[in-house]
Amino acid sequence: MNPLNQLYGHSLSLLTDLYQLTMAYGYWKQGLHQHEAIFHAYFRRTPFNGGYAITAGLDTALAYIETLRFTADDVQYLSQLKGSDDEPLFEAAFLDYLANMRFDCMIHAMPEGSLVFGNEPLLRIQGNLIQCQLLETPLLTILNFQTLIATKAARICDAAQGDAVLEFGLRRAQGVDGGVTAARAAYIGGCTATSNVLAGKLFDIPVKGTHAHSWVMAFEDEREAFQRYAESLPNNCIFLVDTYDTAQGVANAIEVERWLRQRGHKMLGVRLDSGDLLSLSQAVRQQLDAAGCTEAKIVASNDLDEYEVSRLKQQGACIDLWGIGTRLVTAYDQPALGGVYKLAAIRAPEGAWRYTVKLSEQTEKTSLPSALQVRRFHTEQGLFSGDMLYDEHQPPSPQDSSMYEDLLQLVMLQGRRLHAVEPLNTIQARVKQQLNHCPPAVRALEAPAAYPVTVEPQLQGHQQQLIAQLRA
Amino acid sequence: MNPLNQLYGHSLSLLTDLYQLTMAYGYWKQGLHQHEAIFHAYFRRTPFNGGYAITAGLDTALAYIETLRFTADDVQYLSQLKGSDDEPLFEAAFLDYLANMRFDCMIHAMPEGSLVFGNEPLLRIQGNLIQCQLLETPLLTILNFQTLIATKAARICDAAQGDAVLEFGLRRAQGVDGGVTAARAAYIGGCTATSNVLAGKLFDIPVKGTHAHSWVMAFEDEREAFQRYAESLPNNCIFLVDTYDTAQGVANAIEVERWLRQRGHKMLGVRLDSGDLLSLSQAVRQQLDAAGCTEAKIVASNDLDEYEVSRLKQQGACIDLWGIGTRLVTAYDQPALGGVYKLAAIRAPEGAWRYTVKLSEQTEKTSLPSALQVRRFHTEQGLFSGDMLYDEHQPPSPQDSSMYEDLLQLVMLQGRRLHAVEPLNTIQARVKQQLNHCPPAVRALEAPAAYPVTVEPQLQGHQQQLIAQLRA
Repeated sequence: MNPLNQLYGHSLSLLTDLYQLTMAYGYWKQGLHQHEAIFHAYFRRTPFNGGYAITAGLDTALAYIETLRFTADDVQYLSQLKGSDDEPLFEAAFLDYLANMRFDCMIHAMPEGSLVFGNEPLLRIQGNLIQCQLLETPLLTILNFQTLIATKAARICDAAQGDAVLEFGLRRAQGVDGGVTAARAAYIGGCTATSNVLAGKLFDIPVKGTHAHSWVMAFEDEREAFQRYAESLPNNCIFLVDTYDTAQGVANAIEVERWLRQRGHKMLGVRLDSGDLLSLSQAVRQQLDAAGCTEAKIVASNDLDEYEVSRLKQQGACIDLWGIGTRLVTAYDQPALGGVYKLAAIRAPEGAWRYTVKLSEQTEKTSLPSALQVRRFHTEQGLFSGDMLYDEHQPPSPQDSSMYEDLLQLVMLQGRRLHAVEPLNTIQARVKQQLNHCPPAVRALEAPAAYPVTVEPQLQGHQQQLIAQLRA
Repeated sequence: MNPLNQLYGHSLSLLTDLYQLTMAYGYWKQGLHQHEAIFHAYFRRTPFNGGYAITAGLDTALAYIETLRFTADDVQYLSQLKGSDDEPLFEAAFLDYLANMRFDCMIHAMPEGSLVFGNEPLLRIQGNLIQCQLLETPLLTILNFQTLIATKAARICDAAQGDAVLEFGLRRAQGVDGGVTAARAAYIGGCTATSNVLAGKLFDIPVKGTHAHSWVMAFEDEREAFQRYAESLPNNCIFLVDTYDTAQGVANAIEVERWLRQRGHKMLGVRLDSGDLLSLSQAVRQQLDAAGCTEAKIVASNDLDEYEVSRLKQQGACIDLWGIGTRLVTAYDQPALGGVYKLAAIRAPEGAWRYTVKLSEQTEKTSLPSALQVRRFHTEQGLFSGDMLYDEHQPPSPQDSSMYEDLLQLVMLQGRRLHAVEPLNTIQARVKQQLNHCPPAVRALEAPAAYPVTVEPQLQGHQQQLIAQLRA
């Protein structure tokens, strides 16, 4: 048995919670498998106490759905699950139904890299009730995590004020594709490169990296280690200078820089990975400049996040590139986005839609019914001024369409994607453009202003009516 | 392009940081590719301010190494990477070297499910310098995350005092195998089941689940929804009672329980997923008991962790099973283990070992040289009394071997594993047994006592000598 290969060589149709399958079975037994449903995926609060989030993961999600099949092996596994009476949980005819299932749902979604706020659907799925139910878990797994990391990356890049931010987090990521997927989302959010070679290969993200402390320790002394590195890779010299003593490390790097220069190469810079990065970076800058290495960059890493980057920038640290690992790829201060997936409408074949809500003691947690669309208004200068959630089946009275955009776009029909895969560069550019249209107070790192998201009055009335009926 | 399939159908040899490959190239250019190295993987501080950690991920790591190959595709990708002068980063002969590489290292490791403390190697790898270097990132990715989650699970199960703990976290996990891998580690740490069907299939973990709010919302009213569920799956009835109103939900469940009983089945229990779980669980218990449903269990979920479980237990909540999601699978309060991988010794072919340390301004962060072994002493009653790190090349003078155990075992030789894969049940049992031998004060959830870990005097002397040399 090889768990890693098993996972990787494996159909992912069972990447779901068992209750999705028991519900699917129940729907099938009760003749609801021809029913059509509408579900929305959304989160209630923007992460990190921030003013906004950035959507990511859509392409991954669509790829997942398009290739989804229950294999003979999957069905075989399900056939041996037992209930409390030790009888099989599922009957054979249902397992045949699963084996023959082809996902043919319709999906509207915000393009990846969109600015999104609390209670706004990132994605709306309409289709067979069973299929929509089975997709709940994998859709949330994919969208929650990538949206979380893209948002974190956008915040860090914002704090870095245009400096390059490199994603370095693989070794501390949550599992193998925790790392690979985080690299994708971090690039969407604005990072310029990753250290993760597999992510580079899969997603065409620039990869960066030079050497670690172990390179220095593998030689008798640091000067020799730098020299040998320069001989080996003269076109990739950023020396890590803090293995033993930073000032001595920089002195050694400067000596090797002279050797490189004589051969038509140059040292790209030095990296600091410990200590007080503010004072160290200033001292190192001075040391480099005094030696004429004014073009050499200073890369800093070591438990950085948006707050630390912002503080270092404000206090005048001489850091040109930021290497961010753990706190980016795990979204350390809030490692999960509380995204949910709620049934909003259901209908029998040929029947009318019945709208549904999930009640909660906290009114703001009560879900919205209908087929939601998000309308984003902007000022004449193009600044986003507020969003409105409305029911696509009962759109609001005509408005000046030059002043808004409807954000959810049809991206999948009959289980097939309608558009080519977007290059990550395109998505990254969208994030930058969207952030430029975001009111600065909403974009603020700390104590951001709340962005106005309203519910269109007819829809709100409909929700209230349903709540009153359920409470009666 | 299908990123998900690409990742999954893919060689994972590039699952590493670029600097591991540039260093590998440098070693190869400098003729160090015949050198032999010893690295240790360890963390400095136990997570969650806890007294201990539980090792996990070894099997995954060994499976990774055993099947590792640079494919033609991987090499092709590397061949087009460029340096700062736009020339290729790697020369072709090195890429051939990679393509022909077969991992043949030797690994000593603690068995999965071992109690481990700060600065103790979970794993020691000895072998070709390049191979050991390339393995740094994937080994850390695998061991850091699984160890983190196994530890979190052990803490939660400890707080639940023997009650069953179910892992429910897939939708909030960090990526696809963030969820699958967390399920594996959570089971090792003591969880009794997972909701994650793929994890159940891959690792033979029991899977559990009944229905969500959407099942209730798919029917006209809750009573009908429970009835229809009972008709469909009479052997799997745990009703979620809080979609609209909990007391009414329990009343509906009790009615359906009567229907079930008449047909020779029974309701297994009810689930609470919101509100004040203390008062709700007490009220629900009373309501169930009054209706004669004394055997029906109460399952609770909703943002639980070890502190909340412990509080609810202490205050007398009537909860029989605990469903734990987000805070378990992401280790919410500390989502990364700061595991590191340090070079401890190196030798040229036929040469003597040269021991190495990485200095740090914080003395306790200075790494230990040598080929470390961990000796765990116990009292006559079998309680662990303290650990000692020593150099296997210079073992301490003979001690009473009935009073200790050496924890690092040879698990891989010449790149092949020496033992059959351990069933997860065996590993889970080891965790329970180890925790029983752990001093209760070290096991405490809050403000635990520090477990004594010492460095054998000869080894400590050796480290100090190296530090003095480097500082000189």
